Amino acid sequence: MRIAALAFSGGLDTTYCAVFLREQGYAVHAVAVDTGGFDDDERRLIAQRAEAAGAAAFHLIDARGELFDRTLKYLLFANALRGDVYPLCVSAERLVQAKCVAEYGRRVGATTLVHGSTGAGNDQVRFDLAFRVLAPGVEIVTPIRAQALSREAEMKYLADRGVDIPPKTGVYSINRGLWGATIGGGETHKSDGVLPESAYVLTALAADRPGEPEDVVIEFEQGVPTAFGNAGAVERLSPVTLIERLNTRAGRRGIGRGMHVGDTILGIKGRVAFEAPAATVLIAAHRELEKLVLSKPQQFWKRTLGDVYGANVHEARFFDPIMRDLEAFLESSQRKVTGRVTVRLEDRIATVLGATSPHSLMNSDKAKYGEGSKLWTGEEAAAFCKIYGVADGMQGNDE
Amino acid sequence: MRIAALAFSGGLDTTYCAVFLREQGYAVHAVAVDTGGFDDDERRLIAQRAEAAGAAAFHLIDARGELFDRTLKYLLFANALRGDVYPLCVSAERLVQAKCVAEYGRRVGATTLVHGSTGAGNDQVRFDLAFRVLAPGVEIVTPIRAQALSREAEMKYLADRGVDIPPKTGVYSINRGLWGATIGGGETHKSDGVLPESAYVLTALAADRPGEPEDVVIEFEQGVPTAFGNAGAVERLSPVTLIERLNTRAGRRGIGRGMHVGDTILGIKGRVAFEAPAATVLIAAHRELEKLVLSKPQQFWKRTLGDVYGANVHEARFFDPIMRDLEAFLESSQRKVTGRVTVRLEDRIATVLGATSPHSLMNSDKAKYGEGSKLWTGEEAAAFCKIYGVADGMQGNDE
Amino acid sequence: MRIAALAFSGGLDTTYCAVFLREQGYAVHAVAVDTGGFDDDERRLIAQRAEAAGAAAFHLIDARGELFDRTLKYLLFANALRGDVYPLCVSAERLVQAKCVAEYGRRVGATTLVHGSTGAGNDQVRFDLAFRVLAPGVEIVTPIRAQALSREAEMKYLADRGVDIPPKTGVYSINRGLWGATIGGGETHKSDGVLPESAYVLTALAADRPGEPEDVVIEFEQGVPTAFGNAGAVERLSPVTLIERLNTRAGRRGIGRGMHVGDTILGIKGRVAFEAPAATVLIAAHRELEKLVLSKPQQFWKRTLGDVYGANVHEARFFDPIMRDLEAFLESSQRKVTGRVTVRLEDRIATVLGATSPHSLMNSDKAKYGEGSKLWTGEEAAAFCKIYGVADGMQGNDE
Amino acid sequence: MRIAALAFSGGLDTTYCAVFLREQGYAVHAVAVDTGGFDDDERRLIAQRAEAAGAAAFHLIDARGELFDRTLKYLLFANALRGDVYPLCVSAERLVQAKCVAEYGRRVGATTLVHGSTGAGNDQVRFDLAFRVLAPGVEIVTPIRAQALSREAEMKYLADRGVDIPPKTGVYSINRGLWGATIGGGETHKSDGVLPESAYVLTALAADRPGEPEDVVIEFEQGVPTAFGNAGAVERLSPVTLIERLNTRAGRRGIGRGMHVGDTILGIKGRVAFEAPAATVLIAAHRELEKLVLSKPQQFWKRTLGDVYGANVHEARFFDPIMRDLEAFLESSQRKVTGRVTVRLEDRIATVLGATSPHSLMNSDKAKYGEGSKLWTGEEAAAFCKIYGVADGMQGNDE
Repeated sequence: MRIAALAFSGGLDTTYCAVFLREQGYAVHAVAVDTGGFDDDERRLIAQRAEAAGAAAFHLIDARGELFDRTLKYLLFANALRGDVYPLCVSAERLVQAKCVAEYGRRVGATTLVHGSTGAGNDQVRFDLAFRVLAPGVEIVTPIRAQALSREAEMKYLADRGVDIPPKTGVYSINRGLWGATIGGGETHKSDGVLPESAYVLTALAADRPGEPEDVVIEFEQGVPTAFGNAGAVERLSPVTLIERLNTRAGRRGIGRGMHVGDTILGIKGRVAFEAPAATVLIAAHRELEKLVLSKPQQFWKRTLGDVYGANVHEARFFDPIMRDLEAFLESSQRKVTGRVTVRLEDRIATVLGATSPHSLMNSDKAKYGEGSKLWTGEEAAAFCKIYGVADGMQGNDE
Repeated sequence: MRIAALAFSGGLDTTYCAVFLREQGYAVHAVAVDTGGFDDDERRLIAQRAEAAGAAAFHLIDARGELFDRTLKYLLFANALRGDVYPLCVSAERLVQAKCVAEYGRRVGATTLVHGSTGAGNDQVRFDLAFRVLAPGVEIVTPIRAQALSREAEMKYLADRGVDIPPKTGVYSINRGLWGATIGGGETHKSDGVLPESAYVLTALAADRPGEPEDVVIEFEQGVPTAFGNAGAVERLSPVTLIERLNTRAGRRGIGRGMHVGDTILGIKGRVAFEAPAATVLIAAHRELEKLVLSKPQQFWKRTLGDVYGANVHEARFFDPIMRDLEAFLESSQRKVTGRVTVRLEDRIATVLGATSPHSLMNSDKAKYGEGSKLWTGEEAAAFCKIYGVADGMQGNDE
Repeated sequence: MRIAALAFSGGLDTTYCAVFLREQGYAVHAVAVDTGGFDDDERRLIAQRAEAAGAAAFHLIDARGELFDRTLKYLLFANALRGDVYPLCVSAERLVQAKCVAEYGRRVGATTLVHGSTGAGNDQVRFDLAFRVLAPGVEIVTPIRAQALSREAEMKYLADRGVDIPPKTGVYSINRGLWGATIGGGETHKSDGVLPESAYVLTALAADRPGEPEDVVIEFEQGVPTAFGNAGAVERLSPVTLIERLNTRAGRRGIGRGMHVGDTILGIKGRVAFEAPAATVLIAAHRELEKLVLSKPQQFWKRTLGDVYGANVHEARFFDPIMRDLEAFLESSQRKVTGRVTVRLEDRIATVLGATSPHSLMNSDKAKYGEGSKLWTGEEAAAFCKIYGVADGMQGNDE
Repeated sequence: MRIAALAFSGGLDTTYCAVFLREQGYAVHAVAVDTGGFDDDERRLIAQRAEAAGAAAFHLIDARGELFDRTLKYLLFANALRGDVYPLCVSAERLVQAKCVAEYGRRVGATTLVHGSTGAGNDQVRFDLAFRVLAPGVEIVTPIRAQALSREAEMKYLADRGVDIPPKTGVYSINRGLWGATIGGGETHKSDGVLPESAYVLTALAADRPGEPEDVVIEFEQGVPTAFGNAGAVERLSPVTLIERLNTRAGRRGIGRGMHVGDTILGIKGRVAFEAPAATVLIAAHRELEKLVLSKPQQFWKRTLGDVYGANVHEARFFDPIMRDLEAFLESSQRKVTGRVTVRLEDRIATVLGATSPHSLMNSDKAKYGEGSKLWTGEEAAAFCKIYGVADGMQGNDE
């Protein structure tokens, strides 16, 4: 019997896939990959749906650590924000989900890999590419894309077979994970639509949210966040736990919301709301620490190459060998990115207050910006300025 | 008699320069260039100081329009934020100040151009280079850099000659202009120092500041902000007036503050606080409008080349001909950046709510991100994904 | 009756297309676009083939001038060589051919645009994209790609209908145009195959080729080659005529041959031989002239952005608006690229001997490289070096 | 007694330095660093000159291996050619020479480091920076720059003290090393001056040079050349020996000559002739091998970042930590650059005939460029083209 490994979320589309494939004669292994969005109730619920859909097996994989190690770490090194605002919450997750399903499929001897993406967006490309690279020659089946059914038709198909239909999740399509949540649908289909307050899930503004500012401390070692807390009490944590705590701490203040209009791989533009409390704070903190310890050209090239890295994650180019080369570059750039950053959390806004590092190149004993310098004399500075301007002087005013 | 054209601010350093040069036998023309930081009282005060210092002439130049046309416009096209946060408030001003002084000097037949920069920072380079390029062969005199006097010595020198000493401006050195203000000194000399609330000038948080959010509308034509107001009442304004209004409107809510650690031209790092209400809001609004109308590679290269443009402004490379080439690139990129952006102003934070443009490439009639597309079929999408992955598939998993 | 505008070369594939479409009921307008590869005999022959294939109309368009103005000019400004060797002979031509066919189709009211590309290479993408952008909504028909017929099947189809079959052109597939020729097939299918001498068409080494070196002079105005000749006798020529003369003059010495392994748009690698006598000489000459008159950052960014420009021409991205922005950049960069370059032509090799320009920044009166300088003193140079090294000194040895 | 470690070449300038410093009371340690330019006679001669100049010690360091490992290797990985032609022969050497002298100085407890560069060129910056970074706080003395003596004055100074004067080396200033030779002076001071044949040292065209073409084979392992020979007999060699053999083999045919106009660190332009037989051949061979095994984005970013790497070597920025990050990138990019390249050496010209690699991505079994492909159908290709053009189609013709 042919085994199909299905990337399973428990939603309508993947439930349809499971039932449809079973009817095609496959033994369906429903594989749910936890990249940070699940709590215990949800984990239980997904397992139940897999059973209800007649899956031959259900497998839940905790991939949060791998998600950080293989992608989020580099996105943080890169300070990667698409369009200067969006922390690439979804694309990194899809990649890791696809990897986990492909690897699971190999272990169980799956002849077929299945995902429930539509033919409209980026996710189909991410799954297809990862499946092709990691499981070359294995059949890929994508019922939702191939059949282009309406939501109603899928529900009728399941109802006809007595399969429990996942409850409607509302007007919005929400993707929730370790690096943040995205919210699509409704107002996001217009370029000036504004989501209602009720649409947000990680940054919902509770009536009893803290009114007073709070200064939190994040410590980095070679670019990786390793400790978190308040000035007096910093606790060493794994990156995953640190991100989860920071999501809670900054999320309840409404920090890290935004809207992004992005370019999809297939050439159309899409708009999405996002909530990324931890990613927003961590990237801002990391970036400021870097300013203390990196050279000017390091900062310039990190910015451009970080943008390339992020774009490739977004566009499903994770397996191009350039990504390994960029990871080597980014890894090297973090040699001295060790230090402590203080961030003030207030209502809706996080402000980096300052940073310290044993490798800091800001040495106010030797030179005070805008005041004086013990490193050179006025005469030397004048000579420097003179020669610094020789090329422009030869060229003349060409304005 | 030799004429010295002096870039004059009315502060201690340039007052010292005026007196010192007069004593050297120069007819000192004190030239104050308004790049947005002056109100009427200040203009009067500067003129009085020039007279008190014995200047042979005083000249005040309103360079706000030129500032926008020659630099701020391109910095906005470029969405230029140094280190992703700082809108280059000072460097663009210095350049225009130096240009105005050099051009004034040529008109009056000055043999000598003078600025009051120290030997420690970036401003000396900006003035020196502009003077050398625009007035080749003209003598440059820089008493503060050359003599490296202490503040106390300068004051004594002036007091000995009965010259009114500008009042101490406090612990901070503040530079205020159209594109924002910077605050140096005191806590900024440490990498984790935090300025007190009282240090801020453009974003001082008045007790009676607005509590309710306010949605403002900015209209752009080919990248230039041309109208401002609220949804129902948008007023056509010159860019300078628009920026001034927005500075007031966003400033009173405390929007646009930040700290930046930067790399100086001479190789040391310096930290500075800034307040840039209008620049912060305009860049965010402009950037989001661009996402609607620019292609993916336009956005990528604008980001990198915009960074280069900003770095060159910062590092006094304005006269390198690459800048004209980058301006041609940026100008071309704005052909379709016409539209209307709504921004919500709240306490301390501005949020772009959305944008519309006649050139918008986000067409939800033809394709809805994440849902369906009338532009292609599922089969075509699958074929695209297959070929999109051919190179990676040949390469195999190289992780 | 439906009108089909067919990009017609007179070869087997496009002859098949013409006959096939006629049988489908189309009035076939065969459009041959001369981008430099045709002599009078060939022009006549193509017309005859169109008639033999039963075309309702035949139209020959001389697009050499447009080819230069719309693409070759910018490729020369960019010094564009794919993989540092190949002057993009084919891709620029395809674009202009597609444009001419689409525009012709619009004029005659064509319902259908047709090209004869296979499904394997880059040309299909270039034609398809240009057709879609320039004639949105018009039907695109591609019989060769759609039917995937063998050469033999096509010949039989034509023979069955009594259509004269174009003679076999030999083992190699040759594309010849103004900017050079490419040679595919045979040995190029292996990564180490070596073409025989007889395969070359523009650089065939005649037994009586010149033995003595010859120094030719090329004059440029703002980057465009405008005159050509020998030291004593330089003749003002249109760019097209100049390129044709240079192709002859350098080609007979065997100058400008090479092999290139390139990445196709669809993800596979392909190898091709090329002969580009004029392009090779012009790019080398232009590049050396630029070194005299451009600043350091201009050269750096021209190289990178020129590479982007060339890649986009290659990958059928000519219509992305980034290309207009890059053209604005390149155009601006050529403001001072005016001067005269001498190139020595010898057997198989061209060497740039030197260049002069009224805008030359190489001023040996003021400073002799490696010897002395009147622009600064030794002391000033030492001060410059000291400050130039401040940042690295703070950082310390991090090797 | 103070010890001065002097970078010593045995020429007039450094002989002057040795004598001058001795008279200032230093114990002068003359350190000659062999970066590939010396034969046994020259080594002996330099030692004699050091003795004649009264050096307290003479030390000869063979730094050829370090030169390759620390810089040439990465320049080859980067295919680094300044201005697309010049293989950076000198700058890499200076850096290694400065390093060796600084390290020697530390070992012997030198209080002073000395180099003989003038104040006009790049070398002073390279030595100064390396000395400052590697020996912070140690005094740097530069008599030639400081005193700006004429050649005649130096000779008189030495003659007065009875020191043997190095014979005049002719009109040209020649720098010879492992990666090539540069020739300055005379005709190079004009932008169109042509050196006489007699000026060349590595590529002198002997009357009895080989007339017949010769095909040589170079093998690379992860980017490093490891074996050399003819098709039938390839010999495993150290990179240094391989480069030396290739210099001889290609040099006697006159391969690798060129002229380059470059931008100096201090802002002026300089022109120089170079001869780099091995570098020219190795870079061409390495680049073609890369085309077989690297992805498209790898090639694009290697080109741009390789240019940055080369520029930084040229501009004495070797110690900026960005260089370590770029080395990590380059190193990673070479993982699959293993294979064999055949190069045809003829009179004045080297042509890469082809390459093979176990990691080749050119797979003519699966897809033949320009012919057919087993990887996709015509229909799939058409679908790919359609979606590939969606964004441009939305945008429309914006030419």
